[in-house]
Amino acid sequence: MHKPALAGVLVLLLACPAPGRAAVTGVVFQISTTKVASWKVAMHNVHNLEATGISGHDIEIVILGPAIHILLKSSPVAPSLTRLHASGVTIDACRAAIRRARLAPGAILPFVHYIRSGIAEVVRRERQGWAYIRP
Amino acid sequence: MHKPALAGVLVLLLACPAPGRAAVTGVVFQISTTKVASWKVAMHNVHNLEATGISGHDIEIVILGPAIHILLKSSPVAPSLTRLHASGVTIDACRAAIRRARLAPGAILPFVHYIRSGIAEVVRRERQGWAYIRP
Amino acid sequence: MHKPALAGVLVLLLACPAPGRAAVTGVVFQISTTKVASWKVAMHNVHNLEATGISGHDIEIVILGPAIHILLKSSPVAPSLTRLHASGVTIDACRAAIRRARLAPGAILPFVHYIRSGIAEVVRRERQGWAYIRP
Repeated sequence: MHKPALAGVLVLLLACPAPGRAAVTGVVFQISTTKVASWKVAMHNVHNLEATGISGHDIEIVILGPAIHILLKSSPVAPSLTRLHASGVTIDACRAAIRRARLAPGAILPFVHYIRSGIAEVVRRERQGWAYIRP
Repeated sequence: MHKPALAGVLVLLLACPAPGRAAVTGVVFQISTTKVASWKVAMHNVHNLEATGISGHDIEIVILGPAIHILLKSSPVAPSLTRLHASGVTIDACRAAIRRARLAPGAILPFVHYIRSGIAEVVRRERQGWAYIRP
Repeated sequence: MHKPALAGVLVLLLACPAPGRAAVTGVVFQISTTKVASWKVAMHNVHNLEATGISGHDIEIVILGPAIHILLKSSPVAPSLTRLHASGVTIDACRAAIRRARLAPGAILPFVHYIRSGIAEVVRRERQGWAYIRP
């Protein structure tokens, strides 16, 4: 191939949005309510997705403000979250939301991944082409 | 065009994500609550979308576990679902969810499309570039 | 580069979905419930997103039928909506939904942007590659 053609091809490779490729891998779940029933549905959804062959490493659960109590060691879905974490699922929460809810750091599940903004993380993943699920 | 350049172009055509084009056609709705009010909103949304010119054939409604009773012949939105089905809308549910809820097969609307996993279907459609609506 | 190769490159540039680029800018929020608590969460989410550097001009909030009362001047989140509008956020609603709810035009926040169909607007934005948030 001529060099200019090669350059054109490289430009195109960069122009073709990366999200298209990332789309083949990730799924981001947003949990944003205080309802335990909806937390259980979300856990079930994630387990179910893994059962269809999607790796936990390609799944991220973002906990938004009002849902923050889901992350307590005493949460009714703590065993599910622990199992999901063990299979590679990332569980994100904003440190600020935890502070606002006055949760004691020692009361929080130890594997929570702290991020600056939950909502910004969901947007970031969608922009990368991840599928978005709001259970 | 030289053969290597042509090969590069073909590689790029494959690299350009198909989802971008598929995005022009489909819309996937996810119904996942037990609330009749939210079912009615969802039905209204779908009708409304059809009124703006999107064909029913490009709309899919995925019923997730807790919402499964929406599919009973006695469901308050059974007439709406029947009408939507008649206009080409696909209505999906997992056979497993129906079994778990112990619904008698004869009590289910006859046009339900059975799939392995509702959540996996939503993810599959999003990956194809379909717009996702969680009413 | 040879002309045929150049033509191929141009074809590819057109084939690469524009949504991929649009994805870098917008976020569309859908508000579709009557719950004031969920309205507050949505307002908080949008503020939070702006705090991470996303311009209000790249954020659109679509109000769907049942949530229409959020747009009353007497709404508990009217001050938040006013602030968001001032920072460039677009707030959309269908005139039909307002009529159906029999809201007096003078009772509605003055900066509401009227559109034909809220749900069609959400779909349109998703097809343009905008990230979708259902708070």
